Formats: sequence, structure tokens, C-alpha cells
Amino acid sequence: MQTTYTVTGMTCGHCVASITEEVKGIPGVEDVVVTLDEGGRMTITSAAPVELRQVSAAVAEAGDYTVAAL
Amino acid sequence: MQTTYTVTGMTCGHCVASITEEVKGIPGVEDVVVTLDEGGRMTITSAAPVELRQVSAAVAEAGDYTVAAL
Repeated sequence: MQTTYTVTGMTCGHCVASITEEVKGIPGVEDVVVTLDEGGRMTITSAAPVELRQVSAAVAEAGDYTVAAL
Repeated sequence: MQTTYTVTGMTCGHCVASITEEVKGIPGVEDVVVTLDEGGRMTITSAAPVELRQVSAAVAEAGDYTVAAL
């Protein structure tokens, strides 16, 4: 399954790389695509739903960003 | 906008009511519909995206449930 989120606060490729790295570390996450397009988007590929708690914590670990379901 | 989530751990109408009440308390949330259908679903209506952090915290406040984007 794929779930897409809006991520605010990213300004450059370093932000993208940082968030990608943290979210890839969540157990069960198979792939993560983060882009600056449309104000910031993230798509997670996983076999099972990934808890909001884990997604939120990973993005916060990457920096001062906010993430919401789209 | 409407965002839909999967919620696990709900067993009855009391769970539904508890989660609905907590999530309705999030600033910016206009409506919340929680059902036991399909293993547990929640749809939030809001003008702006609601941060995962806030959704996750509200559901945790309601009880021992987990919530994920759908």
C-alpha cells in the first residue's frame, strides 16, 4: 500500500534526504519518496499501515517539520 | 478536505465515541466520523491539513488504539 502525506518546512535537498532517511528506518516501511513539489510531499510504501505515531516521530527526528495526511 | 485513517483496537460504540470526542477537540477539525466498519475507520473533515502529531495524540488520549493513514 502507498500513503501520501504533506510535509511542511522543507527548503532543500538536505531536508528531503534527512526525512527520507528517518522514515526509511521505520519497521515495515519498504520505500519512501519525499519531494519539495507542491509544498512538500511524502509517499510511503509498506505492506501494512504505518502508525501515525511512528511517521510523526520520524519526521520530527529529522528536524522542525510538520506532517499531515493528504 | 477529508482524510481517512485506519484505527485498530476499537471494540464497541464507547470506543467510537471516545475517539470522536478527542479528535473533535483538535483545532481546525470540523467533523469526525468514526466507524467500526472494515476493522475501524476514521474520516476527518478540516479546512487545512491536520498534523499527524495531533491526530496521533488525540487517539492515544482516547485509549489504547493505533491509527494510521489509509
